[in-house]
Amino acid sequence: MQPAAHDRGDGSARPAPHASPARRPPIVSAGIILLVMAVVLVVIPRPDSVGPEGWRLLAIFVGTTLALLLRPLPEGAAVLVALTVVIATKTLPPGQALSGYSNSTVWLVLCAFFIARCLIQTGLARRIALNIVRLIGQSSLGLGYALAFSDALLAFIIPSTTARSAGVLLPIARSMAEVYRSQPGPTSGLLGAFLLLTLYQSDIIVTASFLTGQASNPLGAELAGKMAGVPVDFARWLWAALLPGLVSLFLVPWVVFRLARPGIVRTPAAAALARQEIAAMGPRSSAENITLAVFVGVCGLWMTSRFHSLDTTTAALLGVAALLVSGIFTWRDALEERAAWDVFIWYGGVFAMAGGLNDLGVTTAFAGWVSQWFSGWQWFGALLLISIVYFYAHYGFASITAHMVSMFPPFLAVLLALGTPPGVAVFLLLFLTNLDAGLTHYGTLPAPIIFGAGYVSQNLWWKIGFLVSLMNLTIWLGVGMVWWKLIGLW
Amino acid sequence: MQPAAHDRGDGSARPAPHASPARRPPIVSAGIILLVMAVVLVVIPRPDSVGPEGWRLLAIFVGTTLALLLRPLPEGAAVLVALTVVIATKTLPPGQALSGYSNSTVWLVLCAFFIARCLIQTGLARRIALNIVRLIGQSSLGLGYALAFSDALLAFIIPSTTARSAGVLLPIARSMAEVYRSQPGPTSGLLGAFLLLTLYQSDIIVTASFLTGQASNPLGAELAGKMAGVPVDFARWLWAALLPGLVSLFLVPWVVFRLARPGIVRTPAAAALARQEIAAMGPRSSAENITLAVFVGVCGLWMTSRFHSLDTTTAALLGVAALLVSGIFTWRDALEERAAWDVFIWYGGVFAMAGGLNDLGVTTAFAGWVSQWFSGWQWFGALLLISIVYFYAHYGFASITAHMVSMFPPFLAVLLALGTPPGVAVFLLLFLTNLDAGLTHYGTLPAPIIFGAGYVSQNLWWKIGFLVSLMNLTIWLGVGMVWWKLIGLW
Repeated sequence: MQPAAHDRGDGSARPAPHASPARRPPIVSAGIILLVMAVVLVVIPRPDSVGPEGWRLLAIFVGTTLALLLRPLPEGAAVLVALTVVIATKTLPPGQALSGYSNSTVWLVLCAFFIARCLIQTGLARRIALNIVRLIGQSSLGLGYALAFSDALLAFIIPSTTARSAGVLLPIARSMAEVYRSQPGPTSGLLGAFLLLTLYQSDIIVTASFLTGQASNPLGAELAGKMAGVPVDFARWLWAALLPGLVSLFLVPWVVFRLARPGIVRTPAAAALARQEIAAMGPRSSAENITLAVFVGVCGLWMTSRFHSLDTTTAALLGVAALLVSGIFTWRDALEERAAWDVFIWYGGVFAMAGGLNDLGVTTAFAGWVSQWFSGWQWFGALLLISIVYFYAHYGFASITAHMVSMFPPFLAVLLALGTPPGVAVFLLLFLTNLDAGLTHYGTLPAPIIFGAGYVSQNLWWKIGFLVSLMNLTIWLGVGMVWWKLIGLW
Repeated sequence: MQPAAHDRGDGSARPAPHASPARRPPIVSAGIILLVMAVVLVVIPRPDSVGPEGWRLLAIFVGTTLALLLRPLPEGAAVLVALTVVIATKTLPPGQALSGYSNSTVWLVLCAFFIARCLIQTGLARRIALNIVRLIGQSSLGLGYALAFSDALLAFIIPSTTARSAGVLLPIARSMAEVYRSQPGPTSGLLGAFLLLTLYQSDIIVTASFLTGQASNPLGAELAGKMAGVPVDFARWLWAALLPGLVSLFLVPWVVFRLARPGIVRTPAAAALARQEIAAMGPRSSAENITLAVFVGVCGLWMTSRFHSLDTTTAALLGVAALLVSGIFTWRDALEERAAWDVFIWYGGVFAMAGGLNDLGVTTAFAGWVSQWFSGWQWFGALLLISIVYFYAHYGFASITAHMVSMFPPFLAVLLALGTPPGVAVFLLLFLTNLDAGLTHYGTLPAPIIFGAGYVSQNLWWKIGFLVSLMNLTIWLGVGMVWWKLIGLW
């Protein structure tokens, strides 16, 4: 596998071109995809427990996953073509092939994109971040924490890493660096390199810690419920991530500070700039106030889901309805939020296909086959090895989504077959799927954008990525396991 | 009921403002809607056969229909808010409330919009129309027929009256009028008024004659299958409409010619202009050729649906997949086709609610209540009276969709309860829902656009609308009934 895709699902911005590996001509990619599909169909023997429809679906699904990686077509188009093949070959009945589009998780993502648009459009997201910078941005380390905490706060409802880190926070981080005349090139080490590395590495922690961290997290959550019977909603996700997430989030800026120490340590001018920009924004508009009320209200409903009967999607729909009725969010805004429709289409299709693979016994058959190799192992040993393989496989991915789609279901099935407690298997894999994106400058869509700002050399980016990955694995497999024991996941 | 809405579902263009009745302030509309909903919930006694969920759904549905008429919010937003209320009040479970979005009819509409965009974008639709003008446009009556036949040909796959008549054909008709110096004002009667009236009135016939005539036709077809057990696909629809549709389509230009006789009768320069414009377009591009192949292929599959197992939606998906893979239609085009997403959202929501009303026994209860009044009537007498009421009620509608959504299911249920043969009840109502849009200059979205060109006075428009309505009712209730007897619908 080779990185050639970008995580369109993580947000709306286009990738910065120069960090992107060269594109293969689409015809070559298409040829590779068809060849691999033919191999699955013709060469690999179909196990007895899987019917011909299941095997055909596997071939189509493998083709789709490859298409997400090689991108002969954009994700949405590839998934639509795949669904057409699924329906036309009668692999799944149309109702089942299209079932993702009436799934409430898919709708949750659509709604979160809509609410996020209001946070960004009204300036509320920027105002929140600037206020945090104003409060704790007197030192460069403080600035790093300000970026990390702002990202975490926004991740309560903005399900796009790109919108949060590249859209809202990157411009703030850059303007802070420029106040201290730290620019790409010789002066990058003064402040900019540290800020951008901290922004990206803490964004990765945040992405892992929230159901709404990025667009394919709810997909993973839904599959987890289906495959392992582990219910995962917003509050449960955040609870499971709480301790390891906080530890990581507190350590990351400090570790990056040690490893890529900025030349400038005191940054009072940055906090002053934030104060000045807030003043320039004027008092909060009524649109901002209403958006803030919706933001707080929806997150409140999510956090308290066990005390009332409104599920995650219903709460999000209520938020969107409030924004539509108040006129803050117009229907025209909704129709122009192309990233939302894009995610809606590919995500609903992938969702239905992954569910179909599970229903048709393919995932179970794969798990049975792999788990033979581990016979005699304790589940914990297998878990460690599998986690490491799963994590570092992301050197070959340019998209969290592609990783989630292709590797999460089979690896989850394997862990379950080896006797891993379902709660541990589900949450660990969900978290790792996101954390591994910190390795490279193409690991998820904002990576090439932030890298593309030019403050950080590839060497430094990869070195920090690798060292932080060791820290994250230690924290999430160490502190995480203890925490999950305490909260009763195993 | 008062016309205040525009048929966004019928196409992508914005309505011409000056033909639109004054908008009420949204808050007044919202007040009216809430009041009527309260009346349904509190004042009207709930029949024993309907449970509280059913009655609540009725109140929400009545509110939604009023919202489609009064438009305090655009259709899509109104339907999304309605769905939120349905889900949050636990009137329907989320899966059922969102079920429209995995319905293949809803997907058929989405696909048809995508294919239509290619026909228009590549210039193929225009080329087809110009060629027909070139062939039979030597006289003004011939020009009228050219417009009518072009519209019919495009309706095989363009499910938007606006795109066909206002988008593709109106500019052609206007340029033909201008060749003969017929412009809005004193010279409009020379040619322009006749051409535009013919264009609109024949578009209405075409809209009624094809499942793909406009966006809510497939909705009606699906409801017909659900409520009356009458399967309606593309080929069956066209077959049932064939004889009355052809008779109407042949008579309309001639009748309009008699009633609004153009000053200019011979139009060789129009045909010459068409030839010249075709020459200016150059030879067919490969994009046009591929689109043409997809157009012919998909329509071929639709027409022959009883000889193979690919249903209407599958055929349309294959067409879209072919256009995506060939690169004629990019994913960016798809995401920018806002009208398609708009229709997808409101249509899927309305679909689920209308289906829910039927499942919860509300439609049947209404039908039982109305049919008491007709006790002792023969079904044919009741059918005549009900058809006339149903038809002329459109003086109060500015949207075929609003009419279809609010009146088609209950009137169908009444006709069935009175013993009308299901096939007759279904097709007659489906056809009338479209034909009645010819009455006014706001009957469906292209009406205000074509009227807004300024060639036709409101007096003349309404006079022609009324006279053609008499002709259409005679043809579809007379020739239609005979034809439906012949093809075994009763």
